[in-house]
Amino acid sequence: MSPAPKGMRDFSPEIMLLRKSVFSRLEAIFERFGFDPFGTPVVELWETMKGKYGDEAENQMLYYFKDKWSGREMALRYDLTVPLARYMAENPNIPLPFCRYHIGRVYRHDRPQKGRYREFWQCDADVVGSPRPEADALILNLTLEVMKEFGFNEFTVNLNDRRLLRGIFEKGIGIKNPGALYTVIDKLDKIGEDGVKKELGKIIDGKKVNEVMKILKISGKPGQVLEEISEKFKNSDIEESKRDLEEILALIPTEKISLKLGMVRGLDYYTGPIFETLVEAPAIGSITGGGRYDGLIAKYGGKDLPATGTTIGVERLIDAGLELGIFKKEKKTSAEVGIINIGAKSYSWKVADLLRRNGIKVRVDLMDRKDKKQSEYYRKLGIPVLIFIGKQEVDSGEATVMFGQSREKVNLKDLPNKIKTFLKA
Amino acid sequence: MSPAPKGMRDFSPEIMLLRKSVFSRLEAIFERFGFDPFGTPVVELWETMKGKYGDEAENQMLYYFKDKWSGREMALRYDLTVPLARYMAENPNIPLPFCRYHIGRVYRHDRPQKGRYREFWQCDADVVGSPRPEADALILNLTLEVMKEFGFNEFTVNLNDRRLLRGIFEKGIGIKNPGALYTVIDKLDKIGEDGVKKELGKIIDGKKVNEVMKILKISGKPGQVLEEISEKFKNSDIEESKRDLEEILALIPTEKISLKLGMVRGLDYYTGPIFETLVEAPAIGSITGGGRYDGLIAKYGGKDLPATGTTIGVERLIDAGLELGIFKKEKKTSAEVGIINIGAKSYSWKVADLLRRNGIKVRVDLMDRKDKKQSEYYRKLGIPVLIFIGKQEVDSGEATVMFGQSREKVNLKDLPNKIKTFLKA
Repeated sequence: MSPAPKGMRDFSPEIMLLRKSVFSRLEAIFERFGFDPFGTPVVELWETMKGKYGDEAENQMLYYFKDKWSGREMALRYDLTVPLARYMAENPNIPLPFCRYHIGRVYRHDRPQKGRYREFWQCDADVVGSPRPEADALILNLTLEVMKEFGFNEFTVNLNDRRLLRGIFEKGIGIKNPGALYTVIDKLDKIGEDGVKKELGKIIDGKKVNEVMKILKISGKPGQVLEEISEKFKNSDIEESKRDLEEILALIPTEKISLKLGMVRGLDYYTGPIFETLVEAPAIGSITGGGRYDGLIAKYGGKDLPATGTTIGVERLIDAGLELGIFKKEKKTSAEVGIINIGAKSYSWKVADLLRRNGIKVRVDLMDRKDKKQSEYYRKLGIPVLIFIGKQEVDSGEATVMFGQSREKVNLKDLPNKIKTFLKA
Repeated sequence: MSPAPKGMRDFSPEIMLLRKSVFSRLEAIFERFGFDPFGTPVVELWETMKGKYGDEAENQMLYYFKDKWSGREMALRYDLTVPLARYMAENPNIPLPFCRYHIGRVYRHDRPQKGRYREFWQCDADVVGSPRPEADALILNLTLEVMKEFGFNEFTVNLNDRRLLRGIFEKGIGIKNPGALYTVIDKLDKIGEDGVKKELGKIIDGKKVNEVMKILKISGKPGQVLEEISEKFKNSDIEESKRDLEEILALIPTEKISLKLGMVRGLDYYTGPIFETLVEAPAIGSITGGGRYDGLIAKYGGKDLPATGTTIGVERLIDAGLELGIFKKEKKTSAEVGIINIGAKSYSWKVADLLRRNGIKVRVDLMDRKDKKQSEYYRKLGIPVLIFIGKQEVDSGEATVMFGQSREKVNLKDLPNKIKTFLKA
C-alpha cells in the first residue's frame, strides 16, 4: 500500500498526545489574553488565493487544483491570513477589534526536509481593527507568555518598526524604495554580511550600502536606541514610530526586548512595529514572528482594517522541543490504568466502569488473553497503574493495584482515590 | 471578495467555542474508555483511495485532483477508515489491539443542504486487532456513555449481527447473496415498506420477499429475540452470532439495547455485530452507527486484521443540538472579564496581568476608546464580568467589579478569587 503523500505526516497516539497538549497550552494562553478560537475551510477558491502571495509562492508552492465536479479552480490554504481577510470582508458588522487565534493546517509544495513539511500547522494570533500601539503591546505580551509557558529563559524579543526604517533609509539616507532592501537584509543569516552587501549593491549605490550596513548593526535597549536614532534623523516617520514604540514599551515587561534595526522581516506587507523571538538556549532560533500589517486586509479584499499579529512557530517548537528534551515523547497512550483480568472478566469490567465514572482512563483486555500477555501489552504501552482482578479479589470485593514498586489490595470504594494519588505522584 | 467554497464553512468564535467544547467532551470519553488520539493528512494519494468506496462515491463524490507540481494523482480524504487501514499497513509492529479515536475533516462532493456539507468532521472510535466480542462491547459501552454525556434519555441502541442475518436469509430462507438486500432494506425510512418490497422483488422472488419483510419486523429484548431466532433457524452462523451477542450483552447495561433485525446498515463491509443509536426525543434520529468489519483493513491494503468501531455523528449532534436547545450558542467570546479603563491604562494592564496569572480570560481596551464605548463592546460580546479602573481605584489599590446586578470595590489581592466566585455562579 502507498504511504501518505510526501511531506505529509501521520500522527501516532504518542505524537498526537504531545501535539494536543502543546496546542491546548497555547490555546489557554491565547484565551487568557482575550483571543478567541476561529476556523476556516482547508480549501479556498482560487480567486481568493491568487495574487496574494507573490509569484514564487503562486507558481511553485500553492496546491492549486480544478474541482473535477464543478470545474471551479480551488487551492489548499497557504496560510491563515488570507482566510482571515476573506472572513473580515464577508462579515463587515463584526464588533471591532476582532481578536482571534487560529491553529490549523496549511499546505506548501516546498521541498520536504528536516522540519519542513508540505502539510503543517500554523498558529496565529491577530488583532484586527485597532491601529493603536495597545494592540501591538498585547501581541508582545502574549509572545512573552508563550516563552514563559514553555520554560524558555534565554531568548530575545527583537523589536523594530517599518516606519523607523523608512524614516532612516528613505527620509534620512535618501533611498527611494527601502521596501526592496528588506528581502535582501532578511537573508543575512543565510548569505552573510558580504552577501547582503553585494546584493544591496545591485539596488543602491555603494556609499549608501555602507551607511545601511552601519544602521543594521544598531541594537540594544529600546529607549537608548530610540534616542540615538531620533537625534540623528529628525522626521515625522521616526517621531511617529518612536511615540508608538514608547507606548508599547510602557505597557509590557521590557527586560527581554531589544530594539534591533537589523531585524527587518522579509515580507513586504508590514507597515509598523515588527517583532520576532530568538531563542538562544536551547539553540532553536526564531520561534515567533509578526508585526503590524495595516494595508493587508484591504489588499486581500476586506475592508481597510488595521491589523497586527504574530505567528508561533508551533512545528518548530514541537520538533526542536522533542530534539532538545523540552518535551518528552514517553507516553504511548493516554491510558492511566490497565486492568489484568485473571478469569474474572465481568468483575473487571465493573471495576473499569467505576474508575471511568471517576474520570480515570482505563484499558481492559479485549483479546481474551492470558494475564501475562495482558500485562506485557500494558507495559509495552507504558500504562503506569496495573490492576489485577482474580477470584480472590472478586470474593473480597477488592482490587490488587500495582504502581512502581508498590503492590497492594485496595477496597473498591477507595480505589478511585488511591489511583488518583498514584497518578499525581 | 469570494466566499468560502460551497458546502464549506467558516467557524466564528461563537460556533468554534461550541465545537471545541463538544469535541473535547467526546475526547475525554474516548480516553476514559482507552482510546487514543490519532491523526492523518487531509490529502491522500489517489492510489490509496481508488476502488475503496464504490462507484458512486468514486465517480461523484471524491475530491480528486492531480498535483500540479509532481503530476501525482491525489484526493482529499473521504473518511477516516481508509487512512487508518493505510496506517496499519505501514506500521505492522504496532501493539494490538490498536484503539484509536480520530476527529477530523473529510470531504464529499455531495449536494450541499441543511446538515450536509462538503467539508465536515467525522468522529470515529475503532478497535483494530481484536476478533473478540469484548471489543464490540467496548464500542457499545462508549456509545452509551456519549449519550449520557450529552443528556439524552430517550433513545434506543439498535443491535444486530450480519452473521445472524446471513444465518436467517441465506441458510434459513435460501437467499444466495443476502448482502445485496441490505442496501435496499437500509432505505426503509426513505422509500417506505412498499418501496422496499418492490425493490426486493427485483432481486428475489415474491414469496421470499414476504418472508424477509416478516423477519425485518422482529425486534425487542435481545435475549428473547435470540431465543426466537435460534429456535426457528438452526445453523452455525446463528449459533456463533448468538454466542458473541450474549457475551457482549453480559458486559454492558442492556436497558437501552434492542435487537432489531430490520437494522441492517447499508454498507457492505460489515461482518459481525452492527449497531446504531436512534434518539427519539428530541427527534434527532440516528446519531451513532458502526459495527464489525473484519475484512476491510486487508481489503484496504493492510494486514488482515479484525476491527470494530463506531462513528459519532458529530455534525448532526451539533446542528440538532443547537436547533433543539441542547447546546446554547450564547458565548460570543471566551473572555470572562472586560476591563474598562477610565484614564488609567497602565494600572488596567497590571490588573489584567494579575488576573491572567490566575488563569482568568481578560480583555483590555485596544482602541483607546471612551469608557462608554469600551463597555458597549464588552456587552456586545457578552463578557460576564466588567471591571472599572479610574483614578479612584488607582489611588486605593482596588478595582470596581460589576457582575449582574452587583457592583463593588474589591482590593486587588482579593480580586482573582472574587471573580472566580462570580464565574462559578
